Amino acid sequence: MDLVWICVIAGLIGAGIVFYFVRYVLRQDQGSKEIREASHAIQEGAMAFIGREYRTLFIVVVAIAIILALLGFVTPALGWRACVAFIFGAACSMGAGYAGMNMAVRSNGRTCAAAQKGLNHGLRVAFRGGAVMGLTVVSIGIVGLAIIYFAWHNLPREQFVTIIPAYGTGASLVALFARVGGGIFTKGADAGSDLVGKVEAGIPEDDPRNAAVIADFVGDNVGDVCGMGADLLESYVETVIATMTLCVVGTLIAPWITNLFPTLSEAAALQAAWWLPMLIMAGGIAASIIGCFLVRVGEKVEMGALLGALRRGTLSATVLTAIFAFLVIYFLHASLGLFWAVFAGLVAGAFMGESTNYFTSYAYKPTLEISEASTAGGGATIVRGFANGMMSTWPPVLLIAIAIIVAFHFGSFYGVALAAVGMLSTLGVTLATDAYGPVADNAGGITTMVGLPPEVRERTDALDSLGNTTAATGKGFAIGAAAMNSLALILSFATAVGIVTISSAGEIIISPALSLLSAPVIVGVILGALMPAIFCSLTMKSVGVTTALIIDEVRRQWREIKGLMEGTARPEYGRCVDICTRAALKQMLAPSIMTIVAPVLVGVILGKYALTGFLIGALATGFIFAVTLNNAGGSWDNAKKWIEAGHLGGKGSDAHKAGVVGDTAGDPMKDTAGPSLNIMLKLMSVISLLLAPVFVIIGGGLI
Amino acid sequence: MDLVWICVIAGLIGAGIVFYFVRYVLRQDQGSKEIREASHAIQEGAMAFIGREYRTLFIVVVAIAIILALLGFVTPALGWRACVAFIFGAACSMGAGYAGMNMAVRSNGRTCAAAQKGLNHGLRVAFRGGAVMGLTVVSIGIVGLAIIYFAWHNLPREQFVTIIPAYGTGASLVALFARVGGGIFTKGADAGSDLVGKVEAGIPEDDPRNAAVIADFVGDNVGDVCGMGADLLESYVETVIATMTLCVVGTLIAPWITNLFPTLSEAAALQAAWWLPMLIMAGGIAASIIGCFLVRVGEKVEMGALLGALRRGTLSATVLTAIFAFLVIYFLHASLGLFWAVFAGLVAGAFMGESTNYFTSYAYKPTLEISEASTAGGGATIVRGFANGMMSTWPPVLLIAIAIIVAFHFGSFYGVALAAVGMLSTLGVTLATDAYGPVADNAGGITTMVGLPPEVRERTDALDSLGNTTAATGKGFAIGAAAMNSLALILSFATAVGIVTISSAGEIIISPALSLLSAPVIVGVILGALMPAIFCSLTMKSVGVTTALIIDEVRRQWREIKGLMEGTARPEYGRCVDICTRAALKQMLAPSIMTIVAPVLVGVILGKYALTGFLIGALATGFIFAVTLNNAGGSWDNAKKWIEAGHLGGKGSDAHKAGVVGDTAGDPMKDTAGPSLNIMLKLMSVISLLLAPVFVIIGGGLI
Repeated sequence: MDLVWICVIAGLIGAGIVFYFVRYVLRQDQGSKEIREASHAIQEGAMAFIGREYRTLFIVVVAIAIILALLGFVTPALGWRACVAFIFGAACSMGAGYAGMNMAVRSNGRTCAAAQKGLNHGLRVAFRGGAVMGLTVVSIGIVGLAIIYFAWHNLPREQFVTIIPAYGTGASLVALFARVGGGIFTKGADAGSDLVGKVEAGIPEDDPRNAAVIADFVGDNVGDVCGMGADLLESYVETVIATMTLCVVGTLIAPWITNLFPTLSEAAALQAAWWLPMLIMAGGIAASIIGCFLVRVGEKVEMGALLGALRRGTLSATVLTAIFAFLVIYFLHASLGLFWAVFAGLVAGAFMGESTNYFTSYAYKPTLEISEASTAGGGATIVRGFANGMMSTWPPVLLIAIAIIVAFHFGSFYGVALAAVGMLSTLGVTLATDAYGPVADNAGGITTMVGLPPEVRERTDALDSLGNTTAATGKGFAIGAAAMNSLALILSFATAVGIVTISSAGEIIISPALSLLSAPVIVGVILGALMPAIFCSLTMKSVGVTTALIIDEVRRQWREIKGLMEGTARPEYGRCVDICTRAALKQMLAPSIMTIVAPVLVGVILGKYALTGFLIGALATGFIFAVTLNNAGGSWDNAKKWIEAGHLGGKGSDAHKAGVVGDTAGDPMKDTAGPSLNIMLKLMSVISLLLAPVFVIIGGGLI
Repeated sequence: MDLVWICVIAGLIGAGIVFYFVRYVLRQDQGSKEIREASHAIQEGAMAFIGREYRTLFIVVVAIAIILALLGFVTPALGWRACVAFIFGAACSMGAGYAGMNMAVRSNGRTCAAAQKGLNHGLRVAFRGGAVMGLTVVSIGIVGLAIIYFAWHNLPREQFVTIIPAYGTGASLVALFARVGGGIFTKGADAGSDLVGKVEAGIPEDDPRNAAVIADFVGDNVGDVCGMGADLLESYVETVIATMTLCVVGTLIAPWITNLFPTLSEAAALQAAWWLPMLIMAGGIAASIIGCFLVRVGEKVEMGALLGALRRGTLSATVLTAIFAFLVIYFLHASLGLFWAVFAGLVAGAFMGESTNYFTSYAYKPTLEISEASTAGGGATIVRGFANGMMSTWPPVLLIAIAIIVAFHFGSFYGVALAAVGMLSTLGVTLATDAYGPVADNAGGITTMVGLPPEVRERTDALDSLGNTTAATGKGFAIGAAAMNSLALILSFATAVGIVTISSAGEIIISPALSLLSAPVIVGVILGALMPAIFCSLTMKSVGVTTALIIDEVRRQWREIKGLMEGTARPEYGRCVDICTRAALKQMLAPSIMTIVAPVLVGVILGKYALTGFLIGALATGFIFAVTLNNAGGSWDNAKKWIEAGHLGGKGSDAHKAGVVGDTAGDPMKDTAGPSLNIMLKLMSVISLLLAPVFVIIGGGLI
C-alpha cells in the first residue's frame, strides 16, 4: 500500500474535526441584536476585502500560469503540469484562507455572547473558532500534497521534482497577497481609526461613532487570520516539497538518501524518503487534534490558567509528534539520527515562540524597561524598544544555528529539510492558538462597541490579553518556520540547478564556483541583504498612505453625516473598508513585483551562483529584520499596555503619550513589514527553485 | 631607490601643511573673554575625556600586546614583532586623534571670532581647523606604514605579511574606543542636555545655565572629530595592509600578482604590488593638499556657495588622484585594468556621500516627506524616517556591488583591495570637510552661549548647516570605506588562513569547504548577521543610560547651586563631562569585548570556514544596518530642522514635537550605533587576519 493514504486519512480526520468545530460554533448563541449587527458588519467587510483580493489574485495567477505553461517551450521540465500544480496550490491556499477567515468572523460575536455565560465558555468558542483555521490549513495542505503526489509520482523522478515546486509557488503567491495586502489593510485601518478617534476626537477605542472601527476589526481577520494562515500553509507544504526535491540530483538519487536508508534498495530508499516528511506531518495532525481537545480552563479569570490551558494543548502535541516521528523513522528503516534532526526543528520552533514571549510580554524585564524609558519621552521609548528588538534576535538565531548544525550532522541537506518538517509538524495546534487571538480581540471590541456589562468586558479582556501573548509566540514561530523552510528551499534550489552534482563514485560534489569568496557569490549575498530593507521600507510606507486616506474619510463622515457624533446616525462603515481594501491592493504591488522579479533578474543576469548567494544573504538579513521588527513592535505595544494598566502615571500621563508613540511606530513594523518578510524570503526561494530548469539554460551570461 | 620614500616625502609635506594650518589657526584672534572661557572649558573637557580614555586604552593595549607576544609560542608567525607593530599602530592612532581633536577644540572659539569679521574668514578658520585632522591622519597613516615597511620588508615575505596586520589591529582597537566611547559620550551628553534643558526647563539650546552644555560641545569633538579620525585612519592603513597581505599565499606569490604585472619578474612584481597602494595613497595626499587650498568662498551667506567651495575641494582632489593613480599604474608596469579597479572605488566613495546627502538633506523629497509625516504624530515620523533609512541602502549597496564586480574582473582579490585603496586615497580632503563640521557646530554653539549679535549667529549658522551636510556625506563615505576595507581584509584572511592555496601549476584553488552551502559557512553567515543587531542594541542602550545620569546631575545642580537659574552663579560644567566620560567608558566595555571575542570564539569552535562566513554575514547585515541607522537618524534631524525653519507650524507646533521625537530617537542611531558598526566590521576582520596563523593550528575541532 502507498503510505501516503495514511496522510489522506489524517487529512480527512482533520477535516472531520473541522466540521465538528464549525457545527459547534455555529450552534452557539449569536447574542443580542447589536452584537449580531456588529459581527455581521465585520463579516461583510472581511468578505468584501477577500472578494476583491481574490479577484486581483485571479488575474495574477492566470498570468503567471500562462508564463509557466509557455516556459514549457524553454525546458520540458516546466509546462502544463507545472501550470496546473501552480493553479492548484493557489486554489488550496485561497480555499484555506477563505474557510478559516469565514469561521473566525462568525466566531467573534458568538464568543461575545458566550463570555456573557462564563469564561470557559468564551474561551472554548473563541479557540474552536480559531482551531478551524489551524486544522483547515493542515488538512488542505496534506491532502493537496497527497493529490499532487498521486497524480504524478509515477513520472520519472527528475520530472516529478520539477513539478511539485509549482504547487508551493501557487500557495506562496496567495500568501504574499494575504500577508502584504492584509498587513497593509489591518495597520492602515488600525492606525487611522486610533489617530482620528482616540487622539483627534478624544473618543474611546472601538467607539461605534468612528467609521473606521469596523475596518479595524476586519483588519484583524484579514491580517492575522487569513494572512497568518496563508503564510503557514505555504511553509507547511513547501517544507514537504523541499524535502522531496532534495532527494533527486539531476536524474540520480542523492547519496545522502541512500546513506540514510542503508538497509533499503535505491528505489525503496527514495520511496521511504518521500514518505517520511508526509507521514511525520500526518502524525503531527493527529497530535494537533488531541492537543486542541486539551485546551480547557476553570471559571476563575486568571491569565496563568488561560495560558496554561493553551500551553497544555501545544506541549502535548509537541511530545506526541516527537513520538510519532520516532515511530515513522523506525518503521521506514531510516537512520535513527534523523530523529534528532526532526527533534531539533520541533524544539527550535517551540523555544522560538517562548523567546518572543519573553522579549515582548510586560511580565518580563525587557518590556518593563521600555515602559520606564517612556518617562523620558517618545525618543527614548523608540530607542529602547528598537534596542530590545535587536537584542531579541539572539535566541532565534542561536536556535536556528544549532538546529542546522544538528540536522546537517545527522542528515546533510535532507536533515535540514527534515528539521523544518519537525518545526512545522505541530502546525495544526500552534496555528489554532494563534488564530484564536483575533477572534478574542474582535469579541473584546464588540463588547465595548455595543456596551456590554463590565464583567463581560473583564472576561473578553482576559481572553484578548491571552490572544496577544499567543499572537506574539505565533509570530515568532512563523518567522522561524519561514527561515527553516527558506533554507530547505535554497538547498533544493542548489540541487535542482546543478550546483550539487554526484561523482561517478556516488559522492556529492558542490561546485567550487559556489565558493563564498567568488565575486558572484559575494555580490549576491550583498544584494540579497539589501532586499529585506527595501521590502520593509515599501510596506511600512504603504501603511502610512492608507492611514492618511482613512483619516480623511472619517473626518469627512463626521463633517457630512448629521447626528453622527451625537449617536443618532450611523457612520458608513463600509466606505472605510472599501478604501482600505483598494489602498492595500494598490500599495502591495511594488513590494510584490519586486519580490517576484528580483530573483529572476539576479538569476538571469548574474547566474545561479550569485542567486544562491542572493537567497542566503536575504535569508540572513531578513531573519534578523523580521525578528527585530516583530519584537520591537510587540514590546512597544505591551509597554504601552503596562502604562495603561495604571503604572508610571497611567493613561493620559506623559509616559503614556510616549508609549503611544512607540506603539504607533511599532504597529506597521510588527504587523505589516515583519510578517511580510516571511513570505518574501520563501517566495524568492521557491521561485528560484521552480525556475531552476530555466536558470540552467539561460542564467549568468552577463558577468 | 625604494619608492616608499616617495610616500615618506608625501607624508612629510602633509605634516608641513598641517603645521602651516596650525600656525594659521593659532595666530587668529581668540575673541572676547567669554568666547575664550567657553572654548577653554571645551578644551579642558575634551582633554579630560581623552586623557581618561587613553589611560583605559593603555591597559587594554598592553594586555593584548602581551597576548600577542605569548602567541609567539603557539606560532612563530606572531611574537614580539607583531606585539611591537600592534603597539605602534595604537600609538599612531592615539597621536592622530589627539592632535586632530586638540586643534579642533582650539579652532571653535577662533571661528566664532573670525565670523565676527566675515563669512569667508570664518569658513577658512573652521575648515583649516578641521583640515589639520584630515591631513594629520593621512600623514601619520602613510609615514607609519612606511616605518613598518622599512623595518621589516626584508624579512621573508610570508613573515612580513603576518606582522603588518598587527599594526592595523592596534589602530582598530583605538578606533573602537574612540568611536564607541566617543559616540556614547556625545549622544548621552546631547540628549541629556536637550531633555533637561529645552524640554524640561524650557530654556534654549546651548544656554549657559545648563550644566550639560559644555559636555555636549565636548561630545561633538570626541565623537565626530576624534572618533571619525580614528575610524578613517584605521580604514586608511588597513586597506594598504590588506592589499599587501593579499600578495602572498603561504610562502608563494599569489598568481593574480604575477598576472597583473606580466612584464616583471616574480620578485619585481611583488615589489611593485606592494608599492602600488602606497604610491596611490601618496598621490592622494598631494591631491588632497591641493584640494584643501581650493576651499574658499565669497562674502554672501549662501549655502550653495559654501557647499560649492567644499565640493570644489573634494572634486579636484578626486580627479587629480585618478590621474596620479593612472600614472603610478603605468610606471609600475601594472596591468592598466587595475586603473578601473581604483577608479571604481574612487567613484563609489564619491557617490556614496552624495547619496547620503540626498536621503538626509531637507533640500530633497525623502526628508521633506518625514517632515510632513510629523503632522500625524511621533509614530508616523518614526515609521517614515525608518522607512527612508531602509530605502537609502540601495545606492550604496549597488555602488559597492558594481565596484566589487569591476575590481574582481580586472584584478581578482588584489583588485578588490585596490578599489578600497582608491576609495580612501582622497581621505585627506574628505576628512577635512568632515572634521570641519564639529568645529563650525561648536562655533555656532559658543555664539549662542555668549550672546553674540544676530549677524554673527547668521554666519555661524550658515557654517554649521553646511557642516551638517558634510557630516552626512562624510558618514556615508566612512561606512562605504569600512565595508570595502572589511571585504579586503576578509579576502586577506582567506589567503592567510590557507583557504586560498596555489596548485603546482600556479593556479588559485579556493578550498571547496568554503562552499556557501556547507553547514559551517551557513551557520557562520547567520551568526555573523546577528552581530550588528546585538552590537547596535548594546550601544543604543548605553546612550540611554548615560543620558539618564546627565539629567540627574543637571537637575541636582539647579537644585543645589543657588543663583544658577538667575544667571548669577555658574554651573559645574566639569562634573557633567566627568560623568559622561565615566559612563561612556563603562558602557563601551560590553560591545567592545563582544567584538573582540566573537570572531575568536567562532574561529576556535567552528573553524576558519565558519569564520569566513561569519565575517561576510556581519559585513552584509552590518552595512545595511549602518546605512539605515545613519540615514534614518540624519533625515529625522533635518526633518525637524525644516519644521524649525518655520514650516508646517514651526517651533512649538505638534508637528515640531513629533519631529523632536524623531530627532531624539535618531541621535543614538546615527551618531553612536551606526558609526560604531564601521569599527566592529573592520576590527572583527583584522583580528581574524591577525590570528590567522593561530586558527590554522587550533581552529574548528569542535563541530
